[in-house]
Amino acid sequence: MKDEAVTAGQSGGASSAEGHDPAKEKSVAPAAPAGAGPVPPTASASAAPGTRRPGGRTARTRAAVRDAVLSGLADHGYPGLTVEYVADHSGVHKTTLYRRWGGLEGMVADALEMAGEDTWTPPDTGSLEGDLRELAREVVESFSDEATAAAPTAFVAAAFQSARAADALHAYYAERFGRCEAVVERAVERGEAPPDTDAAALVRAVSAPLLLRVFITREPVDAALADQAAAAAVAATRAGAFERR
Amino acid sequence: MKDEAVTAGQSGGASSAEGHDPAKEKSVAPAAPAGAGPVPPTASASAAPGTRRPGGRTARTRAAVRDAVLSGLADHGYPGLTVEYVADHSGVHKTTLYRRWGGLEGMVADALEMAGEDTWTPPDTGSLEGDLRELAREVVESFSDEATAAAPTAFVAAAFQSARAADALHAYYAERFGRCEAVVERAVERGEAPPDTDAAALVRAVSAPLLLRVFITREPVDAALADQAAAAAVAATRAGAFERR
Repeated sequence: MKDEAVTAGQSGGASSAEGHDPAKEKSVAPAAPAGAGPVPPTASASAAPGTRRPGGRTARTRAAVRDAVLSGLADHGYPGLTVEYVADHSGVHKTTLYRRWGGLEGMVADALEMAGEDTWTPPDTGSLEGDLRELAREVVESFSDEATAAAPTAFVAAAFQSARAADALHAYYAERFGRCEAVVERAVERGEAPPDTDAAALVRAVSAPLLLRVFITREPVDAALADQAAAAAVAATRAGAFERR
Repeated sequence: MKDEAVTAGQSGGASSAEGHDPAKEKSVAPAAPAGAGPVPPTASASAAPGTRRPGGRTARTRAAVRDAVLSGLADHGYPGLTVEYVADHSGVHKTTLYRRWGGLEGMVADALEMAGEDTWTPPDTGSLEGDLRELAREVVESFSDEATAAAPTAFVAAAFQSARAADALHAYYAERFGRCEAVVERAVERGEAPPDTDAAALVRAVSAPLLLRVFITREPVDAALADQAAAAAVAATRAGAFERR
């Protein structure tokens, strides 16, 4: 799979082998591959071992609502998501949903916040290029099948329609790319990058050509493109193009 | 304006000083600044002098429908766009709209196709870095005010909800980035880039960090970031990171 081109889903919210079966909705999703990279993970990721907030009825309710929101976004997109759908698929009463989340925007924002609560850390291969290549390949792999691509796609789409979803997406990526900066700090310590390298810009530069193709130009991405993005970012770093001015 | 940070619109379809006034809708929009760069131009761009297909009743009808689609997308987003809205704002009868465009998806796709019919050409400053910097700055400038940002934002959002809009967006960017490749061809001729440079990857690498921030992470972009993207792409090119393998 790693070396096959992945064509971006042509209409974001249309994946749907699952989602209309309430019984299935309430089951615990299988654990996602470790490290979903700097894109929002699918529902399963934060149900995986290692999640920060286990147990408790409140936590279970929150997770059930999050799972219902994700499957609704994947199946119908933000415009088709309704409080009824979330109630039906989470088993949580509508009045509870309104009381605790205010409405759909609050539920979507909370689902994104939970997506940021995993224990993912960036790769540590011993070299800047190795780390960036792994990071880029994680992005490609997360879009290599519809099941893992559906939630991040739905979140990015929702941000176009809801200011609150856009704020949550902004916060999600800021935190996620923030974690990736460890890769740059280690490279500076090893002397692989100038000390005043703009880590935020560098880690975004690696994902940018991939996410551009997935979400905007709708072109395929593959491992070769991931490696190219990593190599380009390393070369630019060495040349000082990411030094802070 | 050039050096001020531009914050990406938090909810894509919400700009709307105009749009609900049919009289205003039918007036000719003021000409856009020449060269909207590798992002879909606003309605006004292809009404500007130099457009390939002037005149004719059919062309005028098509342009009126395109303008109505753009203002509808900007005001309501794809989910809120209706054939009634387009009919009201274009002055074209609903039955004509259905007969000629099949429906909303056809109208949106046609509007994007028209966006690709301008005479924009990439900058030719005499150096690769100069050309890429101008290209990147054009992208930043096109998102520096809501009026010019609305249409491209609406198109990117529509692609998440309509497979046909996604296809049209894909075709738009393929053609637009194709034009940008002239910049790389000239650089190769001048000996500034290796002969087997992957021009398609290089021109995408320049826009990618900007469009990532505008459409995905919802972060501000500015001229300094444009220059950084250009410098990074040039350094990567010189180091051979974009050489075809």
